[in-house]
Amino acid sequence: MKLIIGNKNYSSWSLRGWLAAKQSGISFEELTVHIDGDDWQAMKRQQDEFQPSAGKVPVLWDGDVVVWDSMAIMEYLADKVGRDRFWPKDDAARGMARAMVAEMHSSYLPLRRLCPMNIRRSIPIELTDDAKADIIRILGLWAEARARFGKGGPFLFGTFGAADIFYAPIVSRFITYGIGVPGFAQAYMQAIWEHEWMQAWIAAAEAEEWTISAFEVPVDA
Amino acid sequence: MKLIIGNKNYSSWSLRGWLAAKQSGISFEELTVHIDGDDWQAMKRQQDEFQPSAGKVPVLWDGDVVVWDSMAIMEYLADKVGRDRFWPKDDAARGMARAMVAEMHSSYLPLRRLCPMNIRRSIPIELTDDAKADIIRILGLWAEARARFGKGGPFLFGTFGAADIFYAPIVSRFITYGIGVPGFAQAYMQAIWEHEWMQAWIAAAEAEEWTISAFEVPVDA
Ligand SMILES: N[C@@H](CCC(=O)N[C@@H](CS)C(=O)NCC(=O)O)C(=O)O
Ligand SMILES: N[C@@H](CCC(=O)N[C@@H](CS)C(=O)NCC(=O)O)C(=O)O
Repeated sequence: MKLIIGNKNYSSWSLRGWLAAKQSGISFEELTVHIDGDDWQAMKRQQDEFQPSAGKVPVLWDGDVVVWDSMAIMEYLADKVGRDRFWPKDDAARGMARAMVAEMHSSYLPLRRLCPMNIRRSIPIELTDDAKADIIRILGLWAEARARFGKGGPFLFGTFGAADIFYAPIVSRFITYGIGVPGFAQAYMQAIWEHEWMQAWIAAAEAEEWTISAFEVPVDA
Repeated sequence: MKLIIGNKNYSSWSLRGWLAAKQSGISFEELTVHIDGDDWQAMKRQQDEFQPSAGKVPVLWDGDVVVWDSMAIMEYLADKVGRDRFWPKDDAARGMARAMVAEMHSSYLPLRRLCPMNIRRSIPIELTDDAKADIIRILGLWAEARARFGKGGPFLFGTFGAADIFYAPIVSRFITYGIGVPGFAQAYMQAIWEHEWMQAWIAAAEAEEWTISAFEVPVDA
């Protein structure tokens, strides 16, 4: 199995796909492409490995099977190793986890645009109203998941799973952009940040030498 | 089981959730809210039924279990009735179907914005370059799915399934906005349009009396 990802510092969808691959327990080869030039898209589109995804990362190759998109990668892996590794067993918990993941996948554009993931760099930011609304929505979902279904551990639905994988880049943003959050959320964010796979990803992001100006929010923005 | 949906004429995500509920084979009660006033969001947010979804449709209630978001609804139902009702059995086909559905769920904003679903009204439109790129991408995906995995029937992966459910509102847009497509795509679109559930949805959309000006693209746009 081979997973193609982007720069670890910046590529939030890659982080999701990579955490999903880790969670599957299947060993995989990792191939990083650097999103760092004018021609990177053109370069990627020319390569067979990116053709199916139209040049986006992450892409999973499982032998001849190709799956692009972080969410599809996670579901494909859940098909392979069993749903319970990713999703809560309880119907109500799983229903909510599925809704939160799907919402993450399609929503929060204002927050995602204003605060691109940038693991290395801490910088406080002036929030727009739209981004604030996203943050309030996310904190509300986290609070409800933790309160109703989080008894079995420090993660959203207790043990580490699909919802944590999908919200991990949000945790990174809340930390590096200095978003003030209530105590329960701080505890959750700490659990994510200290997770060994996150620590490995963060260390690799710190070690990367590429800077992409488009993803570097100016200090006085 | 109860499914809350928006106006059938306009609500593309509702159509997806509703087709998924049909595909599950489980009987369900249908509750339509009309997205047709300044205060509809406020009204919905006040009701318990919409609280979890922040006032968006579709929302599925399965007893006490609430699932919002069309994609989560489909996956929750697939959990209930078995994956094979929605997804191809073959790994390569399922990997591609999953990727196409996830891509639909998160992408094609230029096309979705320029051409909001409006089943009742046929109107040719001047396409932007972004919307054209979306259309080319979608046609490419349809072509590949049909060519590689479509032998068993007229739908993307042969028999009617998750990918068809997710691209059905695109079919509606291609038809009503007069988008020129190659023959294989016309045949596919016809299969979708003539599907009995689509016919039932279209008839209900035609019968609705509400018009929402924000979703009515002006003729000279
Ligand atoms: N919905 C996709 C999004 C993938 C995506 O947009 N990836 C970014 C990097 S985080 C990318 O490859 N961008 C390059 C491009 O848009 O060409 C997923 O979940 O995998
Ligand atoms: N990702 C969601 C999108 C749901 C959505 O945006 N629904 C629209 C109607 S098609 C809606 O309820 N809009 C009202 C609003 O945004 O408040 C899904 O797949 O269900």
